[in-house]
Order: sequence, then structure tokens, then C-alpha cells
Amino acid sequence: MTFLSDQFEPPYYAVIFSSVSSRVDAEGYAQTAGRMLDLAAQADGYLGVETLGAGANGITVSYWRDEAAIAAWRNEADHAQARAKGRQTWYKDFRLRVAKVERAYGMSGSK
Amino acid sequence: MTFLSDQFEPPYYAVIFSSVSSRVDAEGYAQTAGRMLDLAAQADGYLGVETLGAGANGITVSYWRDEAAIAAWRNEADHAQARAKGRQTWYKDFRLRVAKVERAYGMSGSK
Repeated sequence: MTFLSDQFEPPYYAVIFSSVSSRVDAEGYAQTAGRMLDLAAQADGYLGVETLGAGANGITVSYWRDEAAIAAWRNEADHAQARAKGRQTWYKDFRLRVAKVERAYGMSGSK
Repeated sequence: MTFLSDQFEPPYYAVIFSSVSSRVDAEGYAQTAGRMLDLAAQADGYLGVETLGAGANGITVSYWRDEAAIAAWRNEADHAQARAKGRQTWYKDFRLRVAKVERAYGMSGSK
């Protein structure tokens, strides 16, 4: 998997999830995070993801076709369970922002 | 500086910059990146930033009051010079996305 996601024609949506873990080595965290990335990639309307972790800090930006796709992924059962576990156990704090991508550029021009 | 930015009442804007460096240890890169973060923080309409790097990969999400603030920061002379250097020397590839934050949540609820 390359780090940068593909480029897509705006408008589309970005879900920006930034987090501070309370226990980065917590049991099941890395496995669950990886499983969620795999599961999201199969969801209808999923476009791509860019994710980075360094120490306790993480940023994951996932890209979606529209708000309906984000809502469906939000309601997916395994994902809902993982989010609850994250809130209760893994995260010390986080921010989640849903944003509509209006303009996008790459190294070689706009898309 | 804490990793997570403050929370703000939507709507506001996010600039999502994800990058792969060609030479992470390139002369001047870290200094320039740090100077740009300091300079952005003084710009009118700047709200906050979340930035992470791991190896050659980086994600920096900066938050802005409106599109006019993003345009003014884009045209700032030192920043324009740093962007040119980034394109020519430091980055192997990047994505830049300008997105309107419509909804935002934290650990303890929506904002």
C-alpha cells in the first residue's frame, strides 16, 4: 500500500481523525486499526485513506464519495464496536472532522 | 505545543497536505517546515494545525477561518518561496486538498 491516496475529482468528502492514544501498545489496538482499514476499503463509496502514526499520535484521513457513504460506514457493526472500544480504552483524546473537499492538487497539477 | 488542535465551531476550512519526501534529511527542510508552522500561526484567520511525520511520509492538516485566509497565506512571500523549494527539491510527491469542515467532534461530544 502506498502512502498517498489516489486523486479524485472534487467534490468528495474527507474524514479527518486525529488522536492521542493512552496506550499505543494496548492489546488488540494495532490489529483492530488494521482490520478497520481493510474493512473501510471494501465499503461502498470509499475512495482512499492516508494514515500516519508516530508515538502516541495519529492522523488518519479517509476519503469518501459522499455523506451517505460516511453514514453507512459509521453504522457498520464491527466499526461501531471498534469505535466504542477506542473511546473506552485506547484513546486519551481525539478530534473527528467531516469536511467537503472543494479543491485538490497533486505534485503535477490540479484534479 | 500539544498535538491536537483546539476545537472550533464549524463551518471552517481544513487544508490537508500529505507528502512523501525524496530526502527527509535534506538541508534546510526541517528548519523551513518549522518556520512555516510558526509563520502560519501568526497569519490572520489561522485556527490551528495538526502535523505528523514518520520516515519520508507526512500529513499536515491546518485549519482556517475561511477561504480568504487560506488565499492570503498562500500568497505570503516566504511561504510561496518555501513551496517552490518543496516542489523542486524536497517532495517526491504530495497531495493538497482544501476542504470545508461541516461537522466536528471530540472525545467528549460535538463542537
